[in-house]
Amino acid sequence: MSISMIDQGSVTSAAGFQASGIIAGLKRSGAKDLAMLYSPRPCVAAGAFTSNLFAAAPVIYDRGLIAADSPIHAIVINSGNANACTGNQGLMDAEATAAHAAGLLCLHPSQVLVSSTGRIGVPMPMHIILAGVDKAVKALSAGGGLDAAHAIMTTDTRPKSCAVAVEIAGTTVRLGGMTKGAGMIAPKLRMQPPQATMLSYVTTDAAIERQALQACLTRALDLSYNRITVDGDTSTNDTLIVLANGAAGNELITANTPAAEAFFQALVTVVATLAREMVLDGEGVTRFVEINVTGAKDHGDARRCAEAIANSALCKTAWFGADPNWGRILCAAGYSGAEFDPRKVNLDFMSTPVVRQGMDAGTPEAELAEIVKAKELTLHLDLGSGEGAFTVWTCDMSYEYVKINADYHT
Amino acid sequence: MSISMIDQGSVTSAAGFQASGIIAGLKRSGAKDLAMLYSPRPCVAAGAFTSNLFAAAPVIYDRGLIAADSPIHAIVINSGNANACTGNQGLMDAEATAAHAAGLLCLHPSQVLVSSTGRIGVPMPMHIILAGVDKAVKALSAGGGLDAAHAIMTTDTRPKSCAVAVEIAGTTVRLGGMTKGAGMIAPKLRMQPPQATMLSYVTTDAAIERQALQACLTRALDLSYNRITVDGDTSTNDTLIVLANGAAGNELITANTPAAEAFFQALVTVVATLAREMVLDGEGVTRFVEINVTGAKDHGDARRCAEAIANSALCKTAWFGADPNWGRILCAAGYSGAEFDPRKVNLDFMSTPVVRQGMDAGTPEAELAEIVKAKELTLHLDLGSGEGAFTVWTCDMSYEYVKINADYHT
Repeated sequence: MSISMIDQGSVTSAAGFQASGIIAGLKRSGAKDLAMLYSPRPCVAAGAFTSNLFAAAPVIYDRGLIAADSPIHAIVINSGNANACTGNQGLMDAEATAAHAAGLLCLHPSQVLVSSTGRIGVPMPMHIILAGVDKAVKALSAGGGLDAAHAIMTTDTRPKSCAVAVEIAGTTVRLGGMTKGAGMIAPKLRMQPPQATMLSYVTTDAAIERQALQACLTRALDLSYNRITVDGDTSTNDTLIVLANGAAGNELITANTPAAEAFFQALVTVVATLAREMVLDGEGVTRFVEINVTGAKDHGDARRCAEAIANSALCKTAWFGADPNWGRILCAAGYSGAEFDPRKVNLDFMSTPVVRQGMDAGTPEAELAEIVKAKELTLHLDLGSGEGAFTVWTCDMSYEYVKINADYHT
Repeated sequence: MSISMIDQGSVTSAAGFQASGIIAGLKRSGAKDLAMLYSPRPCVAAGAFTSNLFAAAPVIYDRGLIAADSPIHAIVINSGNANACTGNQGLMDAEATAAHAAGLLCLHPSQVLVSSTGRIGVPMPMHIILAGVDKAVKALSAGGGLDAAHAIMTTDTRPKSCAVAVEIAGTTVRLGGMTKGAGMIAPKLRMQPPQATMLSYVTTDAAIERQALQACLTRALDLSYNRITVDGDTSTNDTLIVLANGAAGNELITANTPAAEAFFQALVTVVATLAREMVLDGEGVTRFVEINVTGAKDHGDARRCAEAIANSALCKTAWFGADPNWGRILCAAGYSGAEFDPRKVNLDFMSTPVVRQGMDAGTPEAELAEIVKAKELTLHLDLGSGEGAFTVWTCDMSYEYVKINADYHT
């Protein structure tokens, strides 16, 4: 099986998908702020949503439709307002947005999903949203994927899209995706029930059973979105939706088959690429850091440990300063809640020994200082206490992160 | 019972205690870096130490002595090196430091505690430490409390000391304390077994049984050090030690008596004052924030929720920017792991309604913007789901925090 990246790939790289991204007027900056995805063919949908108790109205709305196995044709996505902490009015606004788009596209409201990102706690300006939907429907085109990726941005500095092609049982299928960050990023997505905010959409022209699609997505999460954190803040709006419309004409992919495995690999390629891109474009990021924890008692401990390091303000500021201070990394491991014997801990930067048996490995500090200047740094922490492993992708914390988030509101 | 603050109070305000703070040469800045506390009378000691698995050598050493109920006469405290992640050599160095001080003071080594703060993972420069101990012993005096408070500082901008007097059963007893912060501050202290780093010392001339002293300290933790967080990083070296030498000549205080309660109130006054001071002098702090969570299912949920808010990079940067963005506060509560019904949540800034039933309370934003400009901000989040309550003291996150911690090492 070979998976090939499609040049300038986007959510419209898969056959039978149209998209648009337009200026509705939600953002004071005047940038694009409303996107639409549309497939004339009905799509099988899978989704994973935030685990935050203050799930935003569109998250609650979409969860319901996906749980009900409703065939999906379209998604309306706005930036500039999160429609979170907006009560019953927020839910009604989400429904009204879907209903309005459905009317224009001759669909049933239950065939349209909605997503929002932006400020929490502000009522949706529905006149702007509905007029924006009118405009977005008119702008739908088979080349609109990159416009859509632009319109979902908040503090992102660039749109993030990609697409792949893969041959499954003799038929080429395509998967395209788009995503946005760039702060409040620590998705803990849950399948069927889970600001900036992570929003991510994958389209595919593969014909695939819903159960198989859900299973592929569940497996893909830990290899992509659930391994990233920019700031440890899990948003109210995190959303990942996959739509499969079957336009490729392949034989229907069912669960636990070689075809499903091939599809899974292609899906992971798309979502891991987008998740990585999201961290690279995180708020104020100057350095990408991959943290591999191995030797933990179990998977949960490995994850706790990797996340404690990734979210430590002291580790993140040290990375910003290209400071090889490994004491902060061990310190974070030590308070993470993971159980291990500190005397068995080894740490490498790239493949250079830093800590052996819980102590300085003796690599000259000047050498470590050179290594941590890399734009992409890989750390490997082995706890020496079991088989549990987890990888997290994160970033440093810079002045710029503070600036962006001290000034966001005002 | 009346507790009075002692002007210019310090660890030498209690009768029979001497202290010193000298320049040993551990800090490149040339600032004072070694302190000593000494009581010719033997002291009953109680201690609480970091829960970090990478507990520093002096923490391991002190825990052992306090658990063994060893009578204590002295503490040697150095800044500039944490003696953490230093293996057996680190333990031997801690013992050698205690033994050296004991020799000079004609004590048994088990009568001397040691504490360290500074960089993790660097072997202790023992020639500097031992020469420093010589100098510190010579400098001991009944007026040396403020010098000692200076010598334990790392990134602190000012020394932090206080003392109180209280009459217990007709006799005046005194309690004095000193502490240092100012980053890697989120102590989770455990009684008998719990960088910058929190170090804190309380002396008292009260005569008190060890068991009563431990009980008072345990109760005092949640009202002081265990409710503060600067950056959520729990250090390898956090230490709180209380020494009671009985020089006041009061009737011995035993557990569960009115006298123990009076002593407890005085102890809380000292440690809460110092804990608050530590946050006010946290790295780069421009704003002090008290977070009161009530209505949680239980105490644990209240604490999880308050800590998630206090440690959220997005909340902290918003406070820095004097941004009334309450969505970030609710968002942090929502991912904290606490269980509650989001539709029952109320939030106040000072005593002004911000959120009612999980939604905007309608207070004009300009009014909220004025409130959050306060140097000391109080938030009250009621989860409406039970009787659990917890208070956290924290601070904002500024450019200066990033600067201090990006540059600390190099």
